Amino acid sequence: MRAITIPEPGGPEALVWAEVPAPQLSEGEVLVQVAASAVNRADVVQRQGFYDPPPGASAYPGLECAGTITEVGPGVSGWSVGDEVCALLAGGGYAEQVAVPAGQLLPLPKGLDVTQAAALPEVTCTVWSNVFMVAHLRPGETLLVHGGSSGIGTMAIQLAKAVGARVAVTAGSAEKLESCRELGADVLINYREQDFVEEIRKATDGRGADVILDIIGAKYLDQNVRALATNGRLAIIGLQGGRKGELNLGALLAKRGAVTATSLRGRPVEEKSAIVAAVREHVWPLIENGQVRPIVDRTLPMADAAEGHRVLEESGHIGKVVLTVG
Amino acid sequence: MRAITIPEPGGPEALVWAEVPAPQLSEGEVLVQVAASAVNRADVVQRQGFYDPPPGASAYPGLECAGTITEVGPGVSGWSVGDEVCALLAGGGYAEQVAVPAGQLLPLPKGLDVTQAAALPEVTCTVWSNVFMVAHLRPGETLLVHGGSSGIGTMAIQLAKAVGARVAVTAGSAEKLESCRELGADVLINYREQDFVEEIRKATDGRGADVILDIIGAKYLDQNVRALATNGRLAIIGLQGGRKGELNLGALLAKRGAVTATSLRGRPVEEKSAIVAAVREHVWPLIENGQVRPIVDRTLPMADAAEGHRVLEESGHIGKVVLTVG
Repeated sequence: MRAITIPEPGGPEALVWAEVPAPQLSEGEVLVQVAASAVNRADVVQRQGFYDPPPGASAYPGLECAGTITEVGPGVSGWSVGDEVCALLAGGGYAEQVAVPAGQLLPLPKGLDVTQAAALPEVTCTVWSNVFMVAHLRPGETLLVHGGSSGIGTMAIQLAKAVGARVAVTAGSAEKLESCRELGADVLINYREQDFVEEIRKATDGRGADVILDIIGAKYLDQNVRALATNGRLAIIGLQGGRKGELNLGALLAKRGAVTATSLRGRPVEEKSAIVAAVREHVWPLIENGQVRPIVDRTLPMADAAEGHRVLEESGHIGKVVLTVG
Repeated sequence: MRAITIPEPGGPEALVWAEVPAPQLSEGEVLVQVAASAVNRADVVQRQGFYDPPPGASAYPGLECAGTITEVGPGVSGWSVGDEVCALLAGGGYAEQVAVPAGQLLPLPKGLDVTQAAALPEVTCTVWSNVFMVAHLRPGETLLVHGGSSGIGTMAIQLAKAVGARVAVTAGSAEKLESCRELGADVLINYREQDFVEEIRKATDGRGADVILDIIGAKYLDQNVRALATNGRLAIIGLQGGRKGELNLGALLAKRGAVTATSLRGRPVEEKSAIVAAVREHVWPLIENGQVRPIVDRTLPMADAAEGHRVLEESGHIGKVVLTVG
């Protein structure tokens, strides 16, 4: 089969679509013929040589895919050859075939094609696990999403609105903020022109955000704590603004706040499976009834994965960049 | 009635036992004739002039008491004049009488006298709300308690052992560590002589602590993150080592860790009442069956509250310092 390989870390051109050995199925896994994958920021960092795949994961990038089951390994029940699925992966989605632990499979949602479905696993699992399973966003509360027009952001807006929360977003342009508004965002903050702490306070009668979903990390840590409401929860899922920052524990304690930091990729299969099961229970029905939809910025052939990485790195996209195979 | 007043902030001698107006009962409150209160670090900080009582709270120090109900205000059910109780307070425990929201009352545990019961509300509510309601310590997990011989520490050790967790403690002397051992602590760390990060790793086959209950704050923040296990939760309840510290979000994210910071005193009556109800349900039975007991370092007359503060500030005590009235 073919896969995107990274012979030498570097820029987008480091991605090489090449012939490689087919994956070997282990106990509890199925083989998926990949129809589409999607680009995540972790893929970019892996390509640059700064994010090695976790032990046991595929060496190829790609944290999600959609396609068809072509082989069912020992110890797997509930899935059959021919099933159309999408999947959360520890890697290897940029390929024609990938071995997937059965617990990380989701059925193709009714009414969606593989291109749309490939845009779902990472964003639904990340948002559901952080905003709902960790930070317990409740109806009537306010969620602040940094990078509201990203793949994660566009899903967070829709899921939070679907459960009856109020949503504030930050983004870097009027066009991006308009996309967020169309998805249901209530409060639009242009981080290039406005102070998000001040804006979220204004929008909440001084209370602040009950939950913040953050991809920036250190650079925003102090502002995020200031933007939190009493009993607020800051869920950090990316460190685009650095790893080490000053935490004002006095302010956090006065608010009885929580700071969590997570990633999906490093979790063991059991934890990923528990998240996937929760997504299937809570999110899939919202997708199948049309309340929530994948937002796809563009679709490119897998052989042009480099172009997909450029799009992500230039940050001009809205929603997900999907890569199709074959 | 008489109460401990603080005419001018300062050292222990700033505490003055003086005649003051009796408290007025509001809707939903009862009047308690105080038999005993206990010293908390917050009282020391209040005496020094650095911790104003929250809005609406008594101006006098004292965050807990035990005694007898002498009057029941409008809108209170389930409590009667003559009931022996202990209570979590927003202030005013260092007095002959105090008005208490009914939700913050607990019955005197069977088999305990008022002196012992006065030592319970703050430590049981603080430990239960943080270690169990926020950090969800589970059987088989490891709890690290900083200051294991303090009032909070001695209760945390007992409650964690009662639910089947493993307990590691830090303390500053062999005598204090021995007290922790007698209460059930499994791993004893002298923070003056040992590196607690290294010791907790050794004691957990490199995993780290699942939950850390911390009173130090900034000074320990980086070490506490290093001492956490994967999926670990750091619950900060005191800032004796400073308010602002560097947080390594990269390390926290790799562990999928959580940092929370809380205090009891600033919580609204509804939140305090929910915690008190949980303590009555989960902790009171353990106290009444003898599995968990209040640890009282010494008992002093209320007029000698200054001496109680000195004891706490010198940190030679093990468990609680109780102050008796009348």
